[in-house]
Amino acid sequence: MADYILNAWYVAACSHEVGAEALFARRLLDRPVVLYRTEAGDPVALLDRCPHRFAYLSKGRRIGDQIECIYHGLRFGPDGACTRSPYQKTPPARAIVETFPVVERHRMLWIWMGDPALADPALIPDHSHMDNDAERPLVWHVKFDGNWQLGNDNLMELTHLFWLHTSTIGGWKEDAGQTPGEKYTARVENGKVLSRTLNTDVRRPSTFFNGVANGVPYDSWNDTEWVAPANMKFTMGAVPTGTGHIVETPYMVQSHCITPETATSSHYFSGFSRIFQLEGGPEVDERFVAFFKGIFDREDGPMMADIQEQMGDADLLDLDPVILPRDSGAILVRRVVAQRLAEETAQVTARVA
Amino acid sequence: MADYILNAWYVAACSHEVGAEALFARRLLDRPVVLYRTEAGDPVALLDRCPHRFAYLSKGRRIGDQIECIYHGLRFGPDGACTRSPYQKTPPARAIVETFPVVERHRMLWIWMGDPALADPALIPDHSHMDNDAERPLVWHVKFDGNWQLGNDNLMELTHLFWLHTSTIGGWKEDAGQTPGEKYTARVENGKVLSRTLNTDVRRPSTFFNGVANGVPYDSWNDTEWVAPANMKFTMGAVPTGTGHIVETPYMVQSHCITPETATSSHYFSGFSRIFQLEGGPEVDERFVAFFKGIFDREDGPMMADIQEQMGDADLLDLDPVILPRDSGAILVRRVVAQRLAEETAQVTARVA
Amino acid sequence: MADYILNAWYVAACSHEVGAEALFARRLLDRPVVLYRTEAGDPVALLDRCPHRFAYLSKGRRIGDQIECIYHGLRFGPDGACTRSPYQKTPPARAIVETFPVVERHRMLWIWMGDPALADPALIPDHSHMDNDAERPLVWHVKFDGNWQLGNDNLMELTHLFWLHTSTIGGWKEDAGQTPGEKYTARVENGKVLSRTLNTDVRRPSTFFNGVANGVPYDSWNDTEWVAPANMKFTMGAVPTGTGHIVETPYMVQSHCITPETATSSHYFSGFSRIFQLEGGPEVDERFVAFFKGIFDREDGPMMADIQEQMGDADLLDLDPVILPRDSGAILVRRVVAQRLAEETAQVTARVA
Repeated sequence: MADYILNAWYVAACSHEVGAEALFARRLLDRPVVLYRTEAGDPVALLDRCPHRFAYLSKGRRIGDQIECIYHGLRFGPDGACTRSPYQKTPPARAIVETFPVVERHRMLWIWMGDPALADPALIPDHSHMDNDAERPLVWHVKFDGNWQLGNDNLMELTHLFWLHTSTIGGWKEDAGQTPGEKYTARVENGKVLSRTLNTDVRRPSTFFNGVANGVPYDSWNDTEWVAPANMKFTMGAVPTGTGHIVETPYMVQSHCITPETATSSHYFSGFSRIFQLEGGPEVDERFVAFFKGIFDREDGPMMADIQEQMGDADLLDLDPVILPRDSGAILVRRVVAQRLAEETAQVTARVA
Repeated sequence: MADYILNAWYVAACSHEVGAEALFARRLLDRPVVLYRTEAGDPVALLDRCPHRFAYLSKGRRIGDQIECIYHGLRFGPDGACTRSPYQKTPPARAIVETFPVVERHRMLWIWMGDPALADPALIPDHSHMDNDAERPLVWHVKFDGNWQLGNDNLMELTHLFWLHTSTIGGWKEDAGQTPGEKYTARVENGKVLSRTLNTDVRRPSTFFNGVANGVPYDSWNDTEWVAPANMKFTMGAVPTGTGHIVETPYMVQSHCITPETATSSHYFSGFSRIFQLEGGPEVDERFVAFFKGIFDREDGPMMADIQEQMGDADLLDLDPVILPRDSGAILVRRVVAQRLAEETAQVTARVA
Repeated sequence: MADYILNAWYVAACSHEVGAEALFARRLLDRPVVLYRTEAGDPVALLDRCPHRFAYLSKGRRIGDQIECIYHGLRFGPDGACTRSPYQKTPPARAIVETFPVVERHRMLWIWMGDPALADPALIPDHSHMDNDAERPLVWHVKFDGNWQLGNDNLMELTHLFWLHTSTIGGWKEDAGQTPGEKYTARVENGKVLSRTLNTDVRRPSTFFNGVANGVPYDSWNDTEWVAPANMKFTMGAVPTGTGHIVETPYMVQSHCITPETATSSHYFSGFSRIFQLEGGPEVDERFVAFFKGIFDREDGPMMADIQEQMGDADLLDLDPVILPRDSGAILVRRVVAQRLAEETAQVTARVA
């Protein structure tokens, strides 16, 4: 069975990471990719490997919309075709670089590394909350030393907030698991996994302003929508305890998208839009990004690395882990992923046979 | 054939390394182990891996005699049973952490990682010379990048003192191998390997006071008792040359216990009791520990690493080394070890069949 | 098929690297080698591994023309025989260290690591231009993280000068590949590969004085002679454009000799003799060496490492690279190498059968 779902959109980079001029290199699904923008600003993704002697094209130079290899000067256009070989009248016909469909949406660049014929932009997961400038959407990139599925496991249940993140974002519920009315549900719907987490009678201030006045006990909720392979949207809200229903206006919507780098390392693109602290200059946003990056790099990231170290080359489920009730979302996700991987393997086998 | 003898006591830590409160993590026989003490001071050893998502328990926190996993709050007692799962009324029955018998003796914590039914404390090698406070026993921990059997090889013959340790502890015999009366014997007795080394007419001062007045040529002896897998006790004495017999009162008794970390790295627990320099504060002991640690880290440790590098994945004896007369103790040790490994493999095979 | 051609002379070290006293260690063809000079100055090469417990002999000490192992004092002569084992009357007969034929020539030490019976010094490639003190020959050592054959590929065509070396030695031809009269030929002759590169109407100053007055457009040429496994000699000249013929007096002759360290790392010995800047003290030579080392370490070396990274464990040709007309020399070289490797494999097979 393959390690990666190939026929899917993955985030390759935050929009702001790929500037107007520079060539941007990143390993995705264990293949080297070079990303750049044409002079018109359109994103381009090529295999980052010259077909001549395998130099990284990302170390070459931009010449208009083309890349010139730094080793022997072969030039390639955004379509991957060789346009010039210095010591030949006609570039060699075989000198073609693989290209990947890439679409810019929701402040991220989405890449499709499977069969290009199937690359339908309508399949890009909806993170349109990131499109609203008024809610000052932010997105950033971090990495972790673990298999990409560990990212799904980590994000599909949020009880770890009260243990791993005690001193940062999770400290707002001291008696987690002991308060009447706490609820967790998870279900599969149209290939998506939807989960809802309800915390009740929270008596400590939230890390962020959540719409409830300070000092008032509140109930909080987090609706998670997971789309394969590893895209999650968190819709988070709160309401004073005893109000009797859950407010439908979230104070924050978060995006969490994971892209395999290798079998044991992953890119993690994270972001959010908000309805609070909307005033102030860029330093406000910079503080938010530094805050969330810091939490991941000090708390979640090392945990993913530890688990990968404990697992070695094995798959988590093959190691017979204990499953808790709150893992049901993560387990549903692993089932959908396993089915998608099996389907792709079957398709490849059918094609070969 | 297995790489490690499983049914044996190994030193897991010096007593002083595992304090009253902190969780202590160490890799032993290629498995992660967490050591701590109950509030009553009794040592506990658990597999350092939460059975839920495989976080290191040693990164969690002590709650009385229990450990709470930092990832999702599962709690485990010293017997390895899960006592609490926050979002469940009853902890999952399968949530059990493997425990290891552990005994504190001779200022060291001894662990048994094989069949617990066989863990008889009477099998712990005798290092009772470390129990006598009046002889100010000291024990410390270092590591080396080599297979644990290289430690046996290194310690079972002491001629390397005059070459590898020329500038430190070995410099007291300039014409090693050339003095009449030098002797070396080694034999197996009840599964132990016993060797005796006699140096004669030594005319330079010993590194330590050995009971012979300064300036007087002396004969010195070292009796080594080896107990599988890798426990050695050195009893060291000296007498003026020509006295005609060997004094039975040692000036120093040393302990050398090696525990595999992985197939190519090892823990080395070393210590000694003495009858000299018994006055003075803790700074005297600290100087001794620093002196011996320094010798190992600069002289023996790099040599073990070099040999492992030269051997690659092979076993030393499979590489057909030249055997010298003074290797007879080390060779006897390798034979006993090979037999023990073969016996354990046979037992496992018998059980499976 | 083997990874290395064994029956061949390789450069083991620059003459100046192996001094009168010190033992010099270097990994060659994935084996540890210790080099030193006898008191008479003759170079000696031994396997850098004591046959007793596999300590590196290079960490031992020189005793006259012998090496004494630092671990247990065994001594070995330049012929590899053990001359002394401290605790034995007669050294063990099996205690023999493998020796390698080594010849000092052209300011380099050449080693033969295959069948010693075939080690004919007449097979050492001719770099006699390095023997002429009047042309101030220089030779130095660098390393790169790539298979040794990548060094052949890199040096057998020189168009990369105009891209990879734009800012250093290659910047002297702006319209490479576009000037009438440019020529490149390559052919095999008696197992050697000979190539000739002609650049025409060069209008920028050469990096070095090439015999043509400043400001005068010139034609330049580079004749390369390759001898297996990886020895190249560049003969470089220039003449004013329109002179109508190529001057036979080179301004510089370069030596490039590559020796495998491991399958994915290589030693690169480089040097040259010249007819310019012959005045001045050693600081002139030091500047030249620093200049060329710097170029390799910053430009070629990282490129070799990149290509190796892209190739992983595969062979370049198995990855189906695009071949350009100017690669013909490199391809001829790879063919000769493949044939030599196949021949050696066949001989070994024949001997075994």
